[in-house]
Amino acid sequence: MTFYRSITTNAPSGGVSYEKLDIDLSEFEVRLKPVLTGICGTDRGIVNGALPFAYNPHGSQKLVIGHESLCIVTEAKDNDFGISKGDYVVPMVRRPGKCINCLAGRSDNCSDGDKHEAGITGLHGFMREEFGDSAEYLVKVPDPSIGDVAVLTEPLKNVCKAFEMFDVVSRKSIFTDTAGSYHEKKSLVIGTGSEAFLYALKSMDYGFNTFLTNRHDLDDTKNRLVDETKLNFYNYNTMDPFAKSGIDLVIDTSGDPGTIFKFVRKMNNNGIMILFGTNGKAPGTQVDGMDIDYVIERNISLIGSVDGSRIHYEKALQDLTRWKHQYGSSLDDMITARVSPDHTEIFTKKPSDEIKTVIDWS
Amino acid sequence: MTFYRSITTNAPSGGVSYEKLDIDLSEFEVRLKPVLTGICGTDRGIVNGALPFAYNPHGSQKLVIGHESLCIVTEAKDNDFGISKGDYVVPMVRRPGKCINCLAGRSDNCSDGDKHEAGITGLHGFMREEFGDSAEYLVKVPDPSIGDVAVLTEPLKNVCKAFEMFDVVSRKSIFTDTAGSYHEKKSLVIGTGSEAFLYALKSMDYGFNTFLTNRHDLDDTKNRLVDETKLNFYNYNTMDPFAKSGIDLVIDTSGDPGTIFKFVRKMNNNGIMILFGTNGKAPGTQVDGMDIDYVIERNISLIGSVDGSRIHYEKALQDLTRWKHQYGSSLDDMITARVSPDHTEIFTKKPSDEIKTVIDWS
Amino acid sequence: MTFYRSITTNAPSGGVSYEKLDIDLSEFEVRLKPVLTGICGTDRGIVNGALPFAYNPHGSQKLVIGHESLCIVTEAKDNDFGISKGDYVVPMVRRPGKCINCLAGRSDNCSDGDKHEAGITGLHGFMREEFGDSAEYLVKVPDPSIGDVAVLTEPLKNVCKAFEMFDVVSRKSIFTDTAGSYHEKKSLVIGTGSEAFLYALKSMDYGFNTFLTNRHDLDDTKNRLVDETKLNFYNYNTMDPFAKSGIDLVIDTSGDPGTIFKFVRKMNNNGIMILFGTNGKAPGTQVDGMDIDYVIERNISLIGSVDGSRIHYEKALQDLTRWKHQYGSSLDDMITARVSPDHTEIFTKKPSDEIKTVIDWS
Amino acid sequence: MTFYRSITTNAPSGGVSYEKLDIDLSEFEVRLKPVLTGICGTDRGIVNGALPFAYNPHGSQKLVIGHESLCIVTEAKDNDFGISKGDYVVPMVRRPGKCINCLAGRSDNCSDGDKHEAGITGLHGFMREEFGDSAEYLVKVPDPSIGDVAVLTEPLKNVCKAFEMFDVVSRKSIFTDTAGSYHEKKSLVIGTGSEAFLYALKSMDYGFNTFLTNRHDLDDTKNRLVDETKLNFYNYNTMDPFAKSGIDLVIDTSGDPGTIFKFVRKMNNNGIMILFGTNGKAPGTQVDGMDIDYVIERNISLIGSVDGSRIHYEKALQDLTRWKHQYGSSLDDMITARVSPDHTEIFTKKPSDEIKTVIDWS
Repeated sequence: MTFYRSITTNAPSGGVSYEKLDIDLSEFEVRLKPVLTGICGTDRGIVNGALPFAYNPHGSQKLVIGHESLCIVTEAKDNDFGISKGDYVVPMVRRPGKCINCLAGRSDNCSDGDKHEAGITGLHGFMREEFGDSAEYLVKVPDPSIGDVAVLTEPLKNVCKAFEMFDVVSRKSIFTDTAGSYHEKKSLVIGTGSEAFLYALKSMDYGFNTFLTNRHDLDDTKNRLVDETKLNFYNYNTMDPFAKSGIDLVIDTSGDPGTIFKFVRKMNNNGIMILFGTNGKAPGTQVDGMDIDYVIERNISLIGSVDGSRIHYEKALQDLTRWKHQYGSSLDDMITARVSPDHTEIFTKKPSDEIKTVIDWS
Repeated sequence: MTFYRSITTNAPSGGVSYEKLDIDLSEFEVRLKPVLTGICGTDRGIVNGALPFAYNPHGSQKLVIGHESLCIVTEAKDNDFGISKGDYVVPMVRRPGKCINCLAGRSDNCSDGDKHEAGITGLHGFMREEFGDSAEYLVKVPDPSIGDVAVLTEPLKNVCKAFEMFDVVSRKSIFTDTAGSYHEKKSLVIGTGSEAFLYALKSMDYGFNTFLTNRHDLDDTKNRLVDETKLNFYNYNTMDPFAKSGIDLVIDTSGDPGTIFKFVRKMNNNGIMILFGTNGKAPGTQVDGMDIDYVIERNISLIGSVDGSRIHYEKALQDLTRWKHQYGSSLDDMITARVSPDHTEIFTKKPSDEIKTVIDWS
Repeated sequence: MTFYRSITTNAPSGGVSYEKLDIDLSEFEVRLKPVLTGICGTDRGIVNGALPFAYNPHGSQKLVIGHESLCIVTEAKDNDFGISKGDYVVPMVRRPGKCINCLAGRSDNCSDGDKHEAGITGLHGFMREEFGDSAEYLVKVPDPSIGDVAVLTEPLKNVCKAFEMFDVVSRKSIFTDTAGSYHEKKSLVIGTGSEAFLYALKSMDYGFNTFLTNRHDLDDTKNRLVDETKLNFYNYNTMDPFAKSGIDLVIDTSGDPGTIFKFVRKMNNNGIMILFGTNGKAPGTQVDGMDIDYVIERNISLIGSVDGSRIHYEKALQDLTRWKHQYGSSLDDMITARVSPDHTEIFTKKPSDEIKTVIDWS
Repeated sequence: MTFYRSITTNAPSGGVSYEKLDIDLSEFEVRLKPVLTGICGTDRGIVNGALPFAYNPHGSQKLVIGHESLCIVTEAKDNDFGISKGDYVVPMVRRPGKCINCLAGRSDNCSDGDKHEAGITGLHGFMREEFGDSAEYLVKVPDPSIGDVAVLTEPLKNVCKAFEMFDVVSRKSIFTDTAGSYHEKKSLVIGTGSEAFLYALKSMDYGFNTFLTNRHDLDDTKNRLVDETKLNFYNYNTMDPFAKSGIDLVIDTSGDPGTIFKFVRKMNNNGIMILFGTNGKAPGTQVDGMDIDYVIERNISLIGSVDGSRIHYEKALQDLTRWKHQYGSSLDDMITARVSPDHTEIFTKKPSDEIKTVIDWS
C-alpha cells in the first residue's frame, strides 16, 4: 500500500483537497502518471456540490476527481492493446455495464445507466500523481509530437460522438446541399467555452458555414482564437445574422433552455439540434404550442448526445493531429492557464478568460 | 366551365360554406368523385380561422378544404401510373416545389417550404363533388374490398412516415431488445384521437408493448376499440404505469408542451419521442435545465415529423388491408360518424365520441 | 423417457427414416405438436448426403430434420413470451451463440459461426410428432385464421431479412425513383421455387415492377400463381425484357454462378443483387475483368443474405396475413402437395409441379 | 483564341502527343495552371487504346487527358465558392448529368450514366499548360503547406467515397469489435499501387489491423513505405496469414477476378469487400456454387465503388494534411518520379518502382 497525492472531493456533497490517499495499484495491468489534466465544468460542479448524481466509489469516503487526462505509462504488463512503458495515453472516462450497448463497446450509449464514470460516478478519477488502469481503457496518442493539446482528446471525443449521431440522423432526409456537401448549410454553436470551440472546429471540417454565438462579446483571448481559426462569432444580444435565412445545424453547449428554444425557432427545415451542454441549475423557459408546431412542420430533430467511445477518442486524436498542423499555435492557445495540483482554488474560482485550464503534474 | 358544389372557406380568416364553385377541370389527366372525405383538426382549424399559415389558391377568394379523401376515378386519360376509370384512389396532399427533397419525390421533407398542401395552403382540397388531378398524385387502393377504412389512408401515411424516421434515428445505438425485436420495449402514444389510434396500431405491429394515454378516461366507443385491438390505455391523471421503468418510444399527438415534457422525463436511455400533433394555441410550459440535462444524459431524441410521401400512402394501404383482416369490424368502428356534405356545422361542432367523422358523398 | 416418431437422418452422410426416437422433453418450457412442416431443398440435401456442413447433435447418432414448421402448443409453463396452450406458433431455426450479434438477438448475423440450426447443424429439427422448446424461440401466429399458409413463415422470414439488408444498403445512394418510391424501378427474381415466389410478392409490396425468370417455361400450377398475383414471368432462354433498360434489384434463388453473372451484366447503376439461393454443386462459370469492371463503374452491390431473426418471423406473419386477404386462395395454391410423415420417399423424389410440399401431421 | 500546349490522345483509338491546341478559355469563371498532374492506369489505358468507353469531346478530334491534378488559380471572376487568384485547387473529375443523384451533388453515384469525366469521357482533361473551369468544380487546398502530396487528392477521394460506402453497408449488422472499434478486425488491401497504399493508410486510420498483399515481393521503394507507415505486407504466393482466422474488410485494387475470388473465400462472417480496381483485360476465373454458398452463409457483401464527390475531395485533403504531419517525408515518397510534359513516353513505359509518377509543369 502506497500513498498517492490526489485531488479529492466527497461526492455529492463537495469540497476539494489535495491529499495523500491509499490506493492499491498492484493489480492493475498498466500504471500511469498524469502529464496534464483538464478542468471542466463537471469537476467544478462536483467540488461545489452542485451535481447530485456524483458519488464516491463503493466503500470509499472520497472521490478522486478528474476525467480529462493526458498520461504517460510508467509500467505495463503484456496486453492486447499495444500499450507499453513510455507511451502517452488518454484514459477513457466511462466504464461499461452489462447492457447490450455496453457489451458492444458503446457504453456512451448505455441502455440502462448501469455504467461508471471515472472522477464522477463511483470510480476514482485521474487527478492523482500515479494510478493504474486496464489497457483496454487506454487510448494511445499516435503522434505525441502534437504535445499538450492531446489533453483536449477527452472533451473532443464528445464532439466526435455527437457528429456520429448527426451522421445517422441527418440521413432521414437529403440534408446536404446540391453539391452533396455542407458549404451552403449553416451551423451555429451556442456557447464559447472549450467544448464550443471544439464543436465549431469540427463543424468547419464538415464544411459548414460555421457560427459561434454567446450573449456577450468575447474577451481578447477568445477573439484571437476566433480570428485565427476563421470562425464567425456574434453576440446574439446585439446581432442576428439569421433574421432572414435559418440554421441547419445547431449545437448547444450552454444547457440553458431559454437560449435553446430561442434558436429552435431560427432553424431551417430538416434542421438538427445537438443538445450537449448541461446546466441543471439553468432557469426554466416557457415553451408553447407554436414552438412544438415549428419543430414538427419543419421535420426538426433535437438530439441529446453524451460521452463517446474508444472510436471517438481515436478520431479526436486524429483531428487534433491535423488541427495542430493546420492551426499551429492557435490550437495551443486554447490552453489558457496551467496550475499546479495543489492550487485547488482553481476549482472554485474560474479564470476570467479561461478556455481550458489544465493542471500540470510535471 | 361547370359549377361544382364544394365545401369552402376563406383562408386564413375562416368560415365555411357548401356552395357551387366554378373550377375548370378540362385540363386534368384524371377526374374524380369523392366517396368519403375525413374531417380532421386541420379542417376545423381553418374553418375557425385558427391556422394563420392557411391561404387561398393564387387569385382565388375561396379555398376548397379537405385533404383526407377516398375517391373513385370517373375519367382518366392515358397515364404512366396505371390509373383507370373505376379505380378507387387516395389523392396525395402535398405537391412538390423545386428543392432537392421535392425533386427526389420527398416533398414531405421539403427543404425550403416551397410546396403546397391541398385544402390548406394555396391549393384547392378534395371536399367537392367532382375534381381533377394528375395521375402522379393519386395512389391506387390495391384491394378495394377493405371498403370505407381506405379513407384512413391519408392520416395513416403520416404514421408510416414517422416510423420511417424512427427506423433511421433508432440506428444511432442498439435500440432493439436482446431478441433483436421490440417486445421488451415500451411505447406510449399521447392522445386518443384517430391519429393516436393509428400510431398505436402501428406500434403494436412493430412489437412494442404499446400504451395509449390521455388526461381523462375514455368513452364507450374508444374503450371498445382499445379492448378489441388489445391496446393498453390509462388515464395519466389517475395512474402511472411508468413510475418504475420508463418508455422507449413516445409519440405525441397532443401538441401540448406541458404533456410532452411531462413524458420526456419518463423516457429510457436512447429513447425516441416523435413529435407529431400540433396545437398552436396550446399553453406554454416551463422547461428547465434539469429537463435538458435528462435528455442529454440519456441520449434521448425528439423528432418532429410531418406529412408523408407516395411510399407512405402505399404502406398505409397495405397496413389497412392487413388490419381489416386482423381486427375485422373494430377497424370500421374508427369511423364514428357519417354526415352529408351540406352538414357544415360538423366543422364547428365536434361529436363527443368522435374518432373519425367522414363526409359521405354518395 | 418417451419415444416419439421422428423423421431422421444421419448427418452428414444422409439417409432418411421415420422411426421412434427417445428424447427427453421434460425439461422444456413449452411442448409442441407439429401441424404442418414444409420440405425444402436443405432437407432433401441433408437426406441425400449433399450438405457436408450438416451434423448430428452432440453425442447423437441421428438428426431429426425439418426446420419449416407450424405447430400447436400442447403444454406451456409460465413464460415471458405469452405462449400458452393452444397457441399456433412457428419455432425459430437458428439458436444463438455468444458473439455480439447473437447477444443482440441477431443470430442471423452471427459473427463467428458459433450458432446452431434446428434440423441442420447439431440440433434436432421439427419433424417429430411431439417436441419441446423454450418460449423465447417460438413466434406466435397472431391471426390463426390465415390457416395453413402460416407454414410459409419460415421461408418468408428469409425474405424479410434480405429486404432489411436491401433497406440498409440501398441508402448508400438515392435508390428510389423521382416519386420517392420504387414504381419506376425494376426487380428480377431468379428462380421459380417457393422462395422465389415469396421474394417476388415482397418485391411487389415494395412497389417494384417485378419480374420472375427461369431457364424454362412454367407448368400450369406456377403459371396460375403468376397470373393470379399479377407477376411477370419470362423464360430467359427465349426472351429478354431487359435488352434495353436494366434491372435495379436482382434476387437470386438459384445459387447458380452462371445465371448470377449473366444477370449482373444486366443491372442498372446503383443496382443491388441479393444472393440467397445456395447450390454447392452448381457448376462453375467464368468471371472476367469486364464483369468486375461492370460492377465497379455502376456502384453495384452483391449482398449475401442468410436466415432471419425474430423480427423477421413477425414481419413474415404480418405479410402472410395481408397476402391471405389480398390474394385469397392463390396463396394457398403455393402449397402444392400434402404427404403423411411416413411418406419419406418425398425427400428423394420431388413432385414435378412442386412449389411447396408439406407434411401433414394431423 | 490562344493555343495551349496539351497532352492529347484520340479516344478511344489512343496515341499521345504534346501539342498546341486551340481552346477558348474566355468564358470560364476561373483560369488555372497545373502545378503537378498525376499519371494513373486510366491515362495509360486511354493512350494505349485499351479503354473502349473513352471518347473525345463532342465535335473534337482530340481529347486532352489527365484527371489527377493540383493547380494554381491564375484568374478568378467573383464566385460563390471563395476561389481566388493564387489559390491551390484540385479540379473535380466527374461533371453531373440530370439524374437525381447528380442533382443532389452525387455524380459519383450517377443513376443513368449520363455524366462526363474530364480527360476520359467527352470532356478535356487537365494536362495542359492553362485551362478554365467553373468554381463549383474546384476544391481549394486548405493548407498549401502540405506541398506536392496534394496531387494525391484525386486518387484519395476514391478511397474516401469507398469508405463512406463501407460506413453505410457495415451498419447491416454489428461490424465493430467488442470495444466498438475496429482494432480486432482485419482488413486486407489487394495490390500495391498508389491507390492500394492510400486505401491501406485510410484503413489504419479506421483502426483496422491492416494488411497489404500482392503476388510478388516488394521493391525497396515500396518496402520502405510499408516500414515507415507500419503497414503489414505479405506476398500471397509465399505466405498466408489468414489460414486460421479470416478477413473482415477486403479492398481490391487489382481488378483481377482470380485474385478477388481467392480472397472472398478467406473472409469472415459479415465481411465486406470493396471492389475498386478495374482491369477489363484481366483473365477470367472460375466461380462455382461453393463460392456463392460461402458468400451467402456468411452474409458477405461485395460492393463496387467508383469515383467520389466534392465532400470526398475535401476529406481527402484533410487526410493528407494529417498524414503529412504523421508520416512526414514518407508520404512524399509516394511520388516516385517527376517528368516534364513533353516526356510523353511515360504513358507507354511505366517506371519499374512507380508508386505515383507526376508531371511537373513548373
